[in-house]
Amino acid sequence: MSGNKAVAYKAPGIVEIIDTPYPTFELQAGPGVNPVNVGRKVPHGVILRTVSTNICGSDQHMVRGRTTAPAGLVLGHEITGEVIETGPDVEFIKVGDIVSVPFNISCGRCRNCKEGKTGICLNVNPDRPGSAYGYVDMGGWVGGQAEFVLVPYADWNLLRFPDREQALEKIMDLTMLSDILPTGFHGAVTAGVGVGSTVYVAGAGPVGLAAAASAQLLGAAVVIVGDLNEDRLAQARSFGCETVNVANGDPADQIEQLLGVREVDAGIDAVGFEARGHGAGAQEAPATVLNSLMDLTAAGGSLGIPGLYVTGDPGAADEAAQKGSLSLSLGTGWAKSLSFTTGQCPVMKYNRQLMMAILHDRIQIAEAVNATAISLQDAPRGYAEFDAGAATKYVLNPNGYLSSN
Amino acid sequence: MSGNKAVAYKAPGIVEIIDTPYPTFELQAGPGVNPVNVGRKVPHGVILRTVSTNICGSDQHMVRGRTTAPAGLVLGHEITGEVIETGPDVEFIKVGDIVSVPFNISCGRCRNCKEGKTGICLNVNPDRPGSAYGYVDMGGWVGGQAEFVLVPYADWNLLRFPDREQALEKIMDLTMLSDILPTGFHGAVTAGVGVGSTVYVAGAGPVGLAAAASAQLLGAAVVIVGDLNEDRLAQARSFGCETVNVANGDPADQIEQLLGVREVDAGIDAVGFEARGHGAGAQEAPATVLNSLMDLTAAGGSLGIPGLYVTGDPGAADEAAQKGSLSLSLGTGWAKSLSFTTGQCPVMKYNRQLMMAILHDRIQIAEAVNATAISLQDAPRGYAEFDAGAATKYVLNPNGYLSSN
Amino acid sequence: MSGNKAVAYKAPGIVEIIDTPYPTFELQAGPGVNPVNVGRKVPHGVILRTVSTNICGSDQHMVRGRTTAPAGLVLGHEITGEVIETGPDVEFIKVGDIVSVPFNISCGRCRNCKEGKTGICLNVNPDRPGSAYGYVDMGGWVGGQAEFVLVPYADWNLLRFPDREQALEKIMDLTMLSDILPTGFHGAVTAGVGVGSTVYVAGAGPVGLAAAASAQLLGAAVVIVGDLNEDRLAQARSFGCETVNVANGDPADQIEQLLGVREVDAGIDAVGFEARGHGAGAQEAPATVLNSLMDLTAAGGSLGIPGLYVTGDPGAADEAAQKGSLSLSLGTGWAKSLSFTTGQCPVMKYNRQLMMAILHDRIQIAEAVNATAISLQDAPRGYAEFDAGAATKYVLNPNGYLSSN
Amino acid sequence: MSGNKAVAYKAPGIVEIIDTPYPTFELQAGPGVNPVNVGRKVPHGVILRTVSTNICGSDQHMVRGRTTAPAGLVLGHEITGEVIETGPDVEFIKVGDIVSVPFNISCGRCRNCKEGKTGICLNVNPDRPGSAYGYVDMGGWVGGQAEFVLVPYADWNLLRFPDREQALEKIMDLTMLSDILPTGFHGAVTAGVGVGSTVYVAGAGPVGLAAAASAQLLGAAVVIVGDLNEDRLAQARSFGCETVNVANGDPADQIEQLLGVREVDAGIDAVGFEARGHGAGAQEAPATVLNSLMDLTAAGGSLGIPGLYVTGDPGAADEAAQKGSLSLSLGTGWAKSLSFTTGQCPVMKYNRQLMMAILHDRIQIAEAVNATAISLQDAPRGYAEFDAGAATKYVLNPNGYLSSN
Repeated sequence: MSGNKAVAYKAPGIVEIIDTPYPTFELQAGPGVNPVNVGRKVPHGVILRTVSTNICGSDQHMVRGRTTAPAGLVLGHEITGEVIETGPDVEFIKVGDIVSVPFNISCGRCRNCKEGKTGICLNVNPDRPGSAYGYVDMGGWVGGQAEFVLVPYADWNLLRFPDREQALEKIMDLTMLSDILPTGFHGAVTAGVGVGSTVYVAGAGPVGLAAAASAQLLGAAVVIVGDLNEDRLAQARSFGCETVNVANGDPADQIEQLLGVREVDAGIDAVGFEARGHGAGAQEAPATVLNSLMDLTAAGGSLGIPGLYVTGDPGAADEAAQKGSLSLSLGTGWAKSLSFTTGQCPVMKYNRQLMMAILHDRIQIAEAVNATAISLQDAPRGYAEFDAGAATKYVLNPNGYLSSN
Repeated sequence: MSGNKAVAYKAPGIVEIIDTPYPTFELQAGPGVNPVNVGRKVPHGVILRTVSTNICGSDQHMVRGRTTAPAGLVLGHEITGEVIETGPDVEFIKVGDIVSVPFNISCGRCRNCKEGKTGICLNVNPDRPGSAYGYVDMGGWVGGQAEFVLVPYADWNLLRFPDREQALEKIMDLTMLSDILPTGFHGAVTAGVGVGSTVYVAGAGPVGLAAAASAQLLGAAVVIVGDLNEDRLAQARSFGCETVNVANGDPADQIEQLLGVREVDAGIDAVGFEARGHGAGAQEAPATVLNSLMDLTAAGGSLGIPGLYVTGDPGAADEAAQKGSLSLSLGTGWAKSLSFTTGQCPVMKYNRQLMMAILHDRIQIAEAVNATAISLQDAPRGYAEFDAGAATKYVLNPNGYLSSN
Repeated sequence: MSGNKAVAYKAPGIVEIIDTPYPTFELQAGPGVNPVNVGRKVPHGVILRTVSTNICGSDQHMVRGRTTAPAGLVLGHEITGEVIETGPDVEFIKVGDIVSVPFNISCGRCRNCKEGKTGICLNVNPDRPGSAYGYVDMGGWVGGQAEFVLVPYADWNLLRFPDREQALEKIMDLTMLSDILPTGFHGAVTAGVGVGSTVYVAGAGPVGLAAAASAQLLGAAVVIVGDLNEDRLAQARSFGCETVNVANGDPADQIEQLLGVREVDAGIDAVGFEARGHGAGAQEAPATVLNSLMDLTAAGGSLGIPGLYVTGDPGAADEAAQKGSLSLSLGTGWAKSLSFTTGQCPVMKYNRQLMMAILHDRIQIAEAVNATAISLQDAPRGYAEFDAGAATKYVLNPNGYLSSN
Repeated sequence: MSGNKAVAYKAPGIVEIIDTPYPTFELQAGPGVNPVNVGRKVPHGVILRTVSTNICGSDQHMVRGRTTAPAGLVLGHEITGEVIETGPDVEFIKVGDIVSVPFNISCGRCRNCKEGKTGICLNVNPDRPGSAYGYVDMGGWVGGQAEFVLVPYADWNLLRFPDREQALEKIMDLTMLSDILPTGFHGAVTAGVGVGSTVYVAGAGPVGLAAAASAQLLGAAVVIVGDLNEDRLAQARSFGCETVNVANGDPADQIEQLLGVREVDAGIDAVGFEARGHGAGAQEAPATVLNSLMDLTAAGGSLGIPGLYVTGDPGAADEAAQKGSLSLSLGTGWAKSLSFTTGQCPVMKYNRQLMMAILHDRIQIAEAVNATAISLQDAPRGYAEFDAGAATKYVLNPNGYLSSN
């Protein structure tokens, strides 16, 4: 146990497997670790041997060099693991438990945590509310695309699976509980999706597909997914969604063909700030998705916005976007009495109920997002293929728990 | 009963008292009346003799020439009246009833009305969901700054006051039920204001003051009102609000002095698209208020946006704003997991409960907004003084019901 | 059009087909019609040619002689029809529309209707809030197990199906929108059923099966249905429910075998006041179901109670129950912080969204309840078989619209 | 620090001041302590020097001998204190903090705590969900009517007051945050009280008065309090409530005189299982209050039931009540579509916002309940006078923090 192989960001477009120290119950200095957090004691933490850890679209923002992430930052905030060591203050989580880790790190003691707002915990990131593993400017907790990882406030943060064997059997589904399934579900819930809704999901990446599958689980009548990538749209159709290729003109026209009306009840933005315009040869256009959703969502509807928007984007096309400003047609939204919900999904609000849905076969999320296990060593390939648009959710397998490697 | 004196928009900056026809139970052609609605039968309507009818800030948008309102459009959507004639289909409302008219016109039969979304009724405006009396592009129903006015779908739309004498005694408060009190209350509710909240209201005009008084009624611990106009801020202080003059620098500094922290729980935009920047000599800057509220509202909070944003604003300072586009720092909002609620207040959702609060002396809204009765003939003066920043809510008295004339 | 064949209650255990007058737009005196309502004008009504009209378990309460229903009362409150005549005030519903009729009659003008509480409308029953077609003490509106029926406040009450052909194709499902599907759904919603819930439904009659199917549609992980009737339990298993035969001892034991714990998240009472005890040879025991649900529902849970409880029950086994009093172990409920929701389902709150779910194949309610079409003449047989425990939902076909007759 | 004077239950009708051990960070055996909890380590706990600790009506149930409480049980679950020692796992609470202790003990790690249901925590009471200090059958945590008390899971449970000096100034109000103010507020919230509501509170003891004051804070239009005790009714009138002496006949008649109608929007049961009948010479009648509230609450309303109902009551008047069964006229409730919420108030859900309301002078709860400080030695007198019906809330002052002693 002297080492810990991990996936690290090295430079724009480059990730590598590096050797890092085995975690301890005290935070160590390192690339991306907030200096104020160095030396912080974590007696409430556990050390996990990673069972599965997924590559996420939001990791790509760092890897593409669109952020200030330093070289050497260990990536990974989608973590499922087996508890192999518990800190002295841990009371309910036990060695041997198979657990899902919400990507939001939260303390379980502050006002926001008490209100269930674990995405904006006040005590884990010295800079601002909210934190995550392996992410630039999010407090500097070491990422989990590694053999081992430290999880603080373990009794609060961890979701224990009731049965080890059952858990490992369904692990390719359960691994989605750490982020994209709750995130997509949050998008659907905050968009007001319910029984009988018609829904438009912008983006057919893993979060968009998870939002679409969540909308179905919530009883939506029709789920329409829009994207430019035909492989991803095919993936959406594979589990019963309708699709719109936004390269083929105004999505409203295509929606009208599907529904008989040009608007849906609920709109979900699963793209975020790296959006591109519609039509052939479209450029990056960060406000495109939100402006389009305001058009496509019927008066009185809501927009769920799990897609990430950032405060600063040095690599953006124009000065306004570099500062995180978007040119939004808010007048359209106001005239239609639309509501908007933004921000990180508070995973803990949803993960237990979604675990139940998975364990009782009410949702097949691994199939929906085309989950594919690869070895830790293959992570660079996974990043590259995902960035190239593969209709695949890559799941790293650092310790051989996943059979389908 | 052969005529009907009314306040009409004539040209930018000019309103006049004109003679118009007495209403009938069928819509007639006229300035601003949607041609598709001409000839529409209104057997479900009643004719009111106006008891009081208020000048609204949103009327000013038309009067300033910022809209496409045609000359001759009869103004007025804040109406309280006495029923003097009922259409053949009216079953529950009776002649002699004193009633408040929600400014939203709604049918009580469509999907949105059944869901309580009366601000986006599908059956009263041929162009789009949502309608109002005396307002450009809102269906063309004749305004109520007049001696008499037609109210359609009367059994559904009207709120009957339980006792005539009591109603006339409290009429200066009850007159605010047609728009600004519910609108301010909606702003507070959708901003998540509850018992113990700290609240920032941008704008100390009548809607801002109504939002502030509503926040108090909802149990807010501290209500802070920001504006550039010292008279209006004094009005806010008169009923226990804290105030911030945004000309004196960053509101966050002033909030910190009041609360010890730089952020509030809930933010309300009672300004809308004609916002000006902060600091001396500020120019029109339509995104200023929303961007400021994203800064001032704590992570996890909500923004209630009763202030009007328009789809097109030919008189705006730049091309983007002319199309209703605003440069919003959505990244800031996203990082803080903020939510946003826009649109017309669905008055019917709140007016009965607010009437109860007025009748039982739980809110003194007339004092809060400095309600002042003036004659119908004085409407032009009222418009001019209000536009010049008077800390006054003008209530027209076309038929002598108001004693304090 | 000179007559109107209808199903009428004649005496305990006896229903007959009788000739009644064709409806008019004014209420006529008749068996069960509230005298105060006689002569009431209904210009807002439409006359329907009945497409389908179902026999309901609550009809059985009257037919068994457990109520004060007078001989000759025309039964039937589950109605789907084609509009053949519209009153002069009807504006949006048109002749030829195929429509579903909520069993609650409501005015669309009173405070309760405006709040969506159409089950307790204040204007349609002179005796108390709430009304229904063809039901004792509910206002005296004539029942719809007939060739033709009058529906008042048609623009408000009726749900129009978007396409006639599609509607007739799915009519055996859509016919459940008038009562049991929304009623079961309301039971599930008010029991707090959501994604991942474990649910226990007491009663496998049509409402219980509809509640179970609704719980699935809402994303429940496991739905367990309890009853004494093996045929009905088999029906529940046919669409994926688990079942508990309460004759086989304590349901908690059987739940533990299914879930590993003795309690569920959510409990639904789809039985009501005619409940019987558990175990072989059980007697009528009106408090049994509720007391059992308090045991079986986990702390913090909610009980949805669509099953009917009455204020007076002359045929009850003991004096307390005759007055509608039940001996409830409220202490148990209080110690577990349970909540309880009672009352008629406000159908309008749910029927549009459930229609969408049916039209887009998200729920197969006709199969779930084993819907079976029979002729109007066969209604007495339907009543008798249903009373004897047939696992069947009988749908009357008075005008030959239903193919599977 | 060798001892710890405390108030203990000795025998029916008798409480005494006894010497008990100073608390340690490990649970010790003692009267009422659950054997399973003995030896439990509490490194997450703090030791408080008690600032104030109130006598509660629910303590009276034990003192009257209506429970199985053993002799020697240390009473007291309404605790405010100063932190004087922190366990090794405590991270955010500091020595010197002045804190309010929610009467519910909760772990902050289980499913229910994560959902905000701290009244039914799964990890603190070996017998069932939910726990409290100094209460029979609630886990056996030692009571706080003492000089010193141990509070477990301190980072989670405690509400820190922002400023020591301000806290001690308003301590007679803030002391109500541990139980009766949140409990009354929960009653009002779960009864659906909002702006403009009419409310009936059954019971003018401290919880009833707190519910009444909470209803005002929530914006209720009219709050009516009913009781048999004229002193307590006078207390209710002192802060603007209307009152009904239920000895003077049917409360509905008196409500009609006040409101013009015989029903209110919202009903609150602040009495519980030791209710007495209405009219002179009334006997104990445990179902009286709930049956009365079902009569007095309008159709569609909700009943908040903070009043305690127990699963067993050996001292009850009849066998049914001894088992915790009540004869409820549920048929009445069902016909009116009423909802019911029972159980302990989850204090943490409300105490921060109510603290804000106190600190900013939005509620004067000490005056409303006539809070009176007495010495620890005087506790027996306080119990006796309170039991005799004094319109007083007794606040014990074990360490001289309270000036008004």
